[in-house]
Amino acid sequence: MKRFALIGAGFIGTLHARNLFRHPEVDFALVADVDPARAQALASQYGARAISVEKVFASDVDAVLIASSTPTHADYVERAARAGQAIYCEKPIDLDTRRAKRAVAAVREAGVAMMIGFNRRFDASHAALKDVVARGELGRVELVQMSCRSQDAPPLSYIEVSGGQMRDQTIHFFDLLCWLTEDVPVEVHVFGEALVDPRIGEAGDVDTSIATLRMASGALVQIDSTRRTRYGYDERVEVFGAQGMAESRRQPHRHLSVYKGREQVSDGLHADWLERIEPTFAAALDAFVAGLHGKDVDYPGAEAALRAQRIADAATRSLQTRAPVAIDVD
Amino acid sequence: MKRFALIGAGFIGTLHARNLFRHPEVDFALVADVDPARAQALASQYGARAISVEKVFASDVDAVLIASSTPTHADYVERAARAGQAIYCEKPIDLDTRRAKRAVAAVREAGVAMMIGFNRRFDASHAALKDVVARGELGRVELVQMSCRSQDAPPLSYIEVSGGQMRDQTIHFFDLLCWLTEDVPVEVHVFGEALVDPRIGEAGDVDTSIATLRMASGALVQIDSTRRTRYGYDERVEVFGAQGMAESRRQPHRHLSVYKGREQVSDGLHADWLERIEPTFAAALDAFVAGLHGKDVDYPGAEAALRAQRIADAATRSLQTRAPVAIDVD
Amino acid sequence: MKRFALIGAGFIGTLHARNLFRHPEVDFALVADVDPARAQALASQYGARAISVEKVFASDVDAVLIASSTPTHADYVERAARAGQAIYCEKPIDLDTRRAKRAVAAVREAGVAMMIGFNRRFDASHAALKDVVARGELGRVELVQMSCRSQDAPPLSYIEVSGGQMRDQTIHFFDLLCWLTEDVPVEVHVFGEALVDPRIGEAGDVDTSIATLRMASGALVQIDSTRRTRYGYDERVEVFGAQGMAESRRQPHRHLSVYKGREQVSDGLHADWLERIEPTFAAALDAFVAGLHGKDVDYPGAEAALRAQRIADAATRSLQTRAPVAIDVD
Amino acid sequence: MKRFALIGAGFIGTLHARNLFRHPEVDFALVADVDPARAQALASQYGARAISVEKVFASDVDAVLIASSTPTHADYVERAARAGQAIYCEKPIDLDTRRAKRAVAAVREAGVAMMIGFNRRFDASHAALKDVVARGELGRVELVQMSCRSQDAPPLSYIEVSGGQMRDQTIHFFDLLCWLTEDVPVEVHVFGEALVDPRIGEAGDVDTSIATLRMASGALVQIDSTRRTRYGYDERVEVFGAQGMAESRRQPHRHLSVYKGREQVSDGLHADWLERIEPTFAAALDAFVAGLHGKDVDYPGAEAALRAQRIADAATRSLQTRAPVAIDVD
Repeated sequence: MKRFALIGAGFIGTLHARNLFRHPEVDFALVADVDPARAQALASQYGARAISVEKVFASDVDAVLIASSTPTHADYVERAARAGQAIYCEKPIDLDTRRAKRAVAAVREAGVAMMIGFNRRFDASHAALKDVVARGELGRVELVQMSCRSQDAPPLSYIEVSGGQMRDQTIHFFDLLCWLTEDVPVEVHVFGEALVDPRIGEAGDVDTSIATLRMASGALVQIDSTRRTRYGYDERVEVFGAQGMAESRRQPHRHLSVYKGREQVSDGLHADWLERIEPTFAAALDAFVAGLHGKDVDYPGAEAALRAQRIADAATRSLQTRAPVAIDVD
Repeated sequence: MKRFALIGAGFIGTLHARNLFRHPEVDFALVADVDPARAQALASQYGARAISVEKVFASDVDAVLIASSTPTHADYVERAARAGQAIYCEKPIDLDTRRAKRAVAAVREAGVAMMIGFNRRFDASHAALKDVVARGELGRVELVQMSCRSQDAPPLSYIEVSGGQMRDQTIHFFDLLCWLTEDVPVEVHVFGEALVDPRIGEAGDVDTSIATLRMASGALVQIDSTRRTRYGYDERVEVFGAQGMAESRRQPHRHLSVYKGREQVSDGLHADWLERIEPTFAAALDAFVAGLHGKDVDYPGAEAALRAQRIADAATRSLQTRAPVAIDVD
Repeated sequence: MKRFALIGAGFIGTLHARNLFRHPEVDFALVADVDPARAQALASQYGARAISVEKVFASDVDAVLIASSTPTHADYVERAARAGQAIYCEKPIDLDTRRAKRAVAAVREAGVAMMIGFNRRFDASHAALKDVVARGELGRVELVQMSCRSQDAPPLSYIEVSGGQMRDQTIHFFDLLCWLTEDVPVEVHVFGEALVDPRIGEAGDVDTSIATLRMASGALVQIDSTRRTRYGYDERVEVFGAQGMAESRRQPHRHLSVYKGREQVSDGLHADWLERIEPTFAAALDAFVAGLHGKDVDYPGAEAALRAQRIADAATRSLQTRAPVAIDVD
Repeated sequence: MKRFALIGAGFIGTLHARNLFRHPEVDFALVADVDPARAQALASQYGARAISVEKVFASDVDAVLIASSTPTHADYVERAARAGQAIYCEKPIDLDTRRAKRAVAAVREAGVAMMIGFNRRFDASHAALKDVVARGELGRVELVQMSCRSQDAPPLSYIEVSGGQMRDQTIHFFDLLCWLTEDVPVEVHVFGEALVDPRIGEAGDVDTSIATLRMASGALVQIDSTRRTRYGYDERVEVFGAQGMAESRRQPHRHLSVYKGREQVSDGLHADWLERIEPTFAAALDAFVAGLHGKDVDYPGAEAALRAQRIADAATRSLQTRAPVAIDVD
């Protein structure tokens, strides 16, 4: 059993709370939030104790799950690291990559485990795709195509502090890309527009984009991202190699088909991203806890966090400069 | 090159005419019909010569394609056989199995080639299914499921002389069944109703039925047949074996999918049976012509015709007696 | 909150325990089992109290979940009913329909709520199919096709006390059929064989069967059941009506496709029935608890249990008599 | 009836010959080829007359179908135009856009009909997609994704004179894009590599590429092209709009699925591009002939040819300059 503290009792924190509570090897002990009442409410629901954020780092927990607001992440990461606590941190560590690097340095110095919330890796179909690629069934990877289409744009207030579409949304797929291919991009070009909401453009961001990347191996990649669909949450990954092609397909939310006239009407996609990827949260926690118990598990750590951020930074510069941008391998 | 005469210039005859004309190894020479003007019109379209039916059997053609009305089949088969002409005959040879047997006896005596128009065997997906079964990929066959659903009931006048749903419609699947499994049924039970049109019931027939069969091997079979759908022509075959299962799936008529709201709307089935199985007519002719040229081809011959008819007769008796009926293996 | 006692701490009981524990409106209070140690182990895992079966009916629980061995069901049902406790009982109430009727009589007299574990009704895709039928989208139902194919035959010792394939396996689909169509069968015919294991035949049972049914409305039904596949658990339901057709499709266990050579290799079916229908257990419990809280919910009750049993009895007689059997409407 | 001359009796010419012969409103009169024996052989197969290319333009044909080698197209187009003959020309008019423009000027001056062989427009599923877009079902188009993956790289000798992947292969999809969206691209960026064969790179070309485009409307587009797959010919088009998304899907070559173990193995894609798009050749000819008979048909004409070429030229410059390139709207 590992004792956990949860920091952040908002939407994502609540989601994590349920999984912490259900996990057979987790003692869900503490909940902290800037709003003590919110911490209290969530804690009492699961028989945990509410506590101030300050005291978390002085407590005896083995691990912290950081699900608070983005600007607090880097600081909490550093404090948990210094306290010798293992860290499961929602992305990003910090929108400023230099700040994120400093936090990661503290983690390395402390030698504590750290996982970043790139949990699409734990989608069962994506993971099966990874296996196919890793076994070499497709031969050398030559083309990758990813679609990342959210059903609803977040509020403008969120967009404004999000770091932009590349850093906020597409970054999950930058991580997925590197993980799937065991390769890194060396150049990126992005076309982007504010087609969903002109105010997103006025805020200096885009809501519809196509990022293309050239990998170190020569493989080529396209990722389209959009902030709004009218048909649910749409995520799809395709890897084309010298020996074959594999696709982690669109997923219907149910399996009914109705035939009438000249049409077959089937259930469409999941209503929203949460309905689609909810199982990945539990799977990610499983991996993190298994790691804490000394098992050799593969999960996105501090390196992966910084790598994805470097790509997102370069992609953002491409949008600004309207030109391809080289990506430092670090 | 083989010289052909076509007997029957109606709907099916016209379909065959096009394939005879296009076939590189067929000399489409003669067309005969009870209506000389209809024979003339079709013949002139393809540079063939119109002729009376009588004269066909005195002509120098290598083969006759009999696509005239059902009651004429047995007589034409016998006359062609005596003339030493190879025979491609639309099913059935005769609704009366004893009459059909006499015609087949004449064919055997003459030693001419004969093919019966069970052309579903030439559907590319059904044929691929047959290969899978024959290679033993599924192990011993244990269950078979077939759907045979026509989009529109034929006119009542046709129903009345059709011999009933088993002999007219389901018979194609009785043949397909024996061919796919290389097995024969020993017992059949049918539930049938006139749900589409009460007048079909008044005419002593059914339009919706489920035939179940027990094969000599112990395998069990279900075939549903209906005379009317509201979603196009629906044909599907599934074979379940001790080692796996294979399905010749429903076929969409195009490959478009539209995602809107919570639905995926795709193209449905073919509008009618002809749109679905039209390619099998050319493929069947290919096989027959290849056989005439001495190639070792597999096509439904006189034995298959009689076998399917025996099964259809037993199925019809089951409908009449409301009890399972044993099928003589002959 | 409703207080629950769980009776039976075996495989199915353990599955129910997890759902009872997680349910926000359930106080999972007591666990009983013929084996006190087993009850104790399960109870302690969820903070419940182990108790003898006898004491359950003297306790203050609102409801009992009966997941003990089949021969105990009827007795426990009656005792819970007399104690005024609501009842969620795994099927069947008793293999002997007369005994089951007596238990149901006790339930009716006591006026307690009763649900029977026909939880396939709670499969999201089957439920969506039911909605489509109920809304009349398909018009009058004319054909139903169901496949019910378990991946592995149960041990022979289980088969011998199971009541036979109709009462043990196919019965779930008899219930599903009546529920989906809001209709009842009036006649049934079954072909059955022991193809999977000859010892099943020697034990007087079959392992592969096709049941066909005629409904009161005239609709025709086919249900194939088998005890063993080599490709996972296979369940499929199709309803054909005068206006269209709807299918609750086979469900892949993941959504990966690999294209190589001339093949597309996709993830197949769920490994076993539990993997496929596990979510229905929680959904069934939701419905039962909602009913306890006075909500107007649709779940399979005592009537449904007896109805399905009458059909299974008639189907078993058809196997024995090798003839169609009429089904009393009660 | 319209009299046609076919110029070019090679691979594509032979394909056209069969369709010209079968067309009920075409009198397939003449065949010309630089190799008179080849012309003679093809002509005699279809009862046409072999003739020298020179004499075609002095003949009384209503239309010429130009399927000769690329460098001859522009000259033949001009000569046919001056002869008042309608023109169906395989793409491109000329690899040099200025030369192509001169030929088009001659066509305009002569006022003859001209169709260019962008026949993917006539694929039934792509055409259905076009209808969905044109009817506004998807709302404003925001993203387009196209895959264009040939099964085998052409010989190096062909690559060297092909004008490069953009002008030879991707150009079909540039046309498809403009036609589907009724929009034009204003900027293009291409990442390309020679991953299939290094000699293609040495010849100054690429064999694997991703072209991204920004349309005048703001819509964004990605097109991946590769010269070799190991799973057949792969073509897919997806259009994402403000109100929904539609996909002209990958097409299986048959409809068989085999379930074994944890896999479903289905038929994959067509073996090669010809197998996949062969029906479009007949459909394209239908449209051209219908136009000759005064019907109001939509087919790719001289404007479309030049437009696609301009895009391909800009895409080629992007590959050379490694930067985005603006596309003149003309």
